Amino acid sequence: MPYVMVQIPHTPSAASPTPRPVPTSADVARLAGVSRATVSYVLNNTSAVRISEPTRRRVHEAAKELGYVPHAAARSLRAGHSRMVLMPAPAIPAGPLYGQFINDLQWALSRLDYTVVQYVTAGLRGDEAARAWAELRPVAVLVPGAGPGAEGVAVLKRAGARAVVTLGPERVDGAHALLMDHEAVGRCAGAHLYARGRRRVGVVVPAETGLETYSRPRLEGVRRALYGTDASVTELPLGYTEQSAGELASRWRQLGIDSVFAYNDEYAMLLMRALQDEGVRIPEDTAVVGADDLMLGRLLRPRLSTIHIELPSGRELAELVDRVVRDPGGTPETHEVLGASVVRRESS
Amino acid sequence: MPYVMVQIPHTPSAASPTPRPVPTSADVARLAGVSRATVSYVLNNTSAVRISEPTRRRVHEAAKELGYVPHAAARSLRAGHSRMVLMPAPAIPAGPLYGQFINDLQWALSRLDYTVVQYVTAGLRGDEAARAWAELRPVAVLVPGAGPGAEGVAVLKRAGARAVVTLGPERVDGAHALLMDHEAVGRCAGAHLYARGRRRVGVVVPAETGLETYSRPRLEGVRRALYGTDASVTELPLGYTEQSAGELASRWRQLGIDSVFAYNDEYAMLLMRALQDEGVRIPEDTAVVGADDLMLGRLLRPRLSTIHIELPSGRELAELVDRVVRDPGGTPETHEVLGASVVRRESS
Repeated sequence: MPYVMVQIPHTPSAASPTPRPVPTSADVARLAGVSRATVSYVLNNTSAVRISEPTRRRVHEAAKELGYVPHAAARSLRAGHSRMVLMPAPAIPAGPLYGQFINDLQWALSRLDYTVVQYVTAGLRGDEAARAWAELRPVAVLVPGAGPGAEGVAVLKRAGARAVVTLGPERVDGAHALLMDHEAVGRCAGAHLYARGRRRVGVVVPAETGLETYSRPRLEGVRRALYGTDASVTELPLGYTEQSAGELASRWRQLGIDSVFAYNDEYAMLLMRALQDEGVRIPEDTAVVGADDLMLGRLLRPRLSTIHIELPSGRELAELVDRVVRDPGGTPETHEVLGASVVRRESS
Repeated sequence: MPYVMVQIPHTPSAASPTPRPVPTSADVARLAGVSRATVSYVLNNTSAVRISEPTRRRVHEAAKELGYVPHAAARSLRAGHSRMVLMPAPAIPAGPLYGQFINDLQWALSRLDYTVVQYVTAGLRGDEAARAWAELRPVAVLVPGAGPGAEGVAVLKRAGARAVVTLGPERVDGAHALLMDHEAVGRCAGAHLYARGRRRVGVVVPAETGLETYSRPRLEGVRRALYGTDASVTELPLGYTEQSAGELASRWRQLGIDSVFAYNDEYAMLLMRALQDEGVRIPEDTAVVGADDLMLGRLLRPRLSTIHIELPSGRELAELVDRVVRDPGGTPETHEVLGASVVRRESS
């Protein structure tokens, strides 16, 4: 049955208000009988200027009566900079691990009194996207994944961004870099499977677009770990569907693979089930390792081995952003912010 | 090993640019030798005014040379309204189903030429949160879950929001409502378990805060479905940890329950594994039903029965927002936007 949006007849419970112009601080000043500067001082809680308690009260009452809300953009036009930290929203829904990390980071920034907005960039890429972000005049920009190039960073800085921080595999000229070395995840998995006596290692590469930023370095990491040994690496494209997993599993015995690093726990769970349905024994015939250390992986039988990924705390990153905003003149910093370690369970 | 953020010594690859003031459209006008109005016409692609090709080129070249990016806020101050659609970011990481829905919606809005930002509200609630959003002067606000009250909606409208749309269980005065009837999910699960001959029905209520908006109406829906029958309903608090699931499972036989609706697929997977580890046979001793119809539920054995939830398409909602922004005078609309149907697999 196709889904249809159903409109319900509405009984208005209150008269629609007549449209009125949006109240400005000038309106507040007029009603309170003070200057616009006084309104600004009172509503922004400026401590530098002494204003009497009755005047403060009059301003607050006038603002309330008019329904006045300060205009963040107007204020930042006057101040020359905003408190907005802009992050592009991921083009693909974030996984649970990364979602939690971004959530923590945003909360930590909010607590430092930044307004954090995620910008949906929709179709723009690289420097073009940076130009769109620049229109909002953020004081800082935090870019996860593949981001703008040096020109995009320059555009953002010219538009007043004091801190541009990338979270990705590479450093970009002019930006602070939090290097997420996804190769380390692959190296860790490759070394583990080798130590478990496996020599014909498959590596799942998701067919879904947008994951290359993570999947290519993970594959490369496995290659590095096994380079110069007697082990071989086979690249295994896999879509995140039961059909794709079933097709791969049906060819499994011809591939001559004795182990697989499956990109992350979700792909590992999908592939492991398909292999089990084909009668492939885990780990006897094929060892399976995921990544991300999700709880769901522990619910499988055999329990899924995984690479635990450690990201820095949201608070640490928020403090870095705040420090750079306060002192934007320094040399761009580079931090390595990804730890990887094996959690061996029953599948390897 | 505690994780430490490591700073890498940096070799500057380009000289840090000397801080310069942010270029304005007046700078562009001066360099191009035209008026500011002409700069605005050219860069905003206004078709109403005829401007010669050489002049256009001069303006674009000057803008490029100066690194000028239009200021969205300044533009919206002049225009009297912005193209910004604001959505508060969820306080808890969204589940896969909801995450995909929000993602689609944001992309659809972006394609209609809205700038979509997710606002991290951090600690503010209800009308207070609405006031913070109002400072960004969005042209539309889309609130998932429990949102502002009638006063918050009024503040947003006074600040220029033409459309305030809530996506939740209830209607709020002055706002358009997309009613998500989570009771229907519970009713569906309750009726299914009853039809399968179950009479002692447990309902998982997540212990995690922030989920009450969904879990209470789902529980209520099961009660409604079974009201007046010979079946009983038992509320089962459950935290999303193996420990919590193990404790619940260890008391299972004393509870005298023959079936459970487990809030969603993730809680269902967790509980089902704990029950299996206790020797409870699924579905013979206890039938289990989840909700959301995630792929991972099909990977379990027995395969997980679930409630498939149908949300409207992001495009439909984006078109509703666009329609209301263009014609903000109408009566608030109410739409029911959640479909629920049983997908019976092997666990019930």
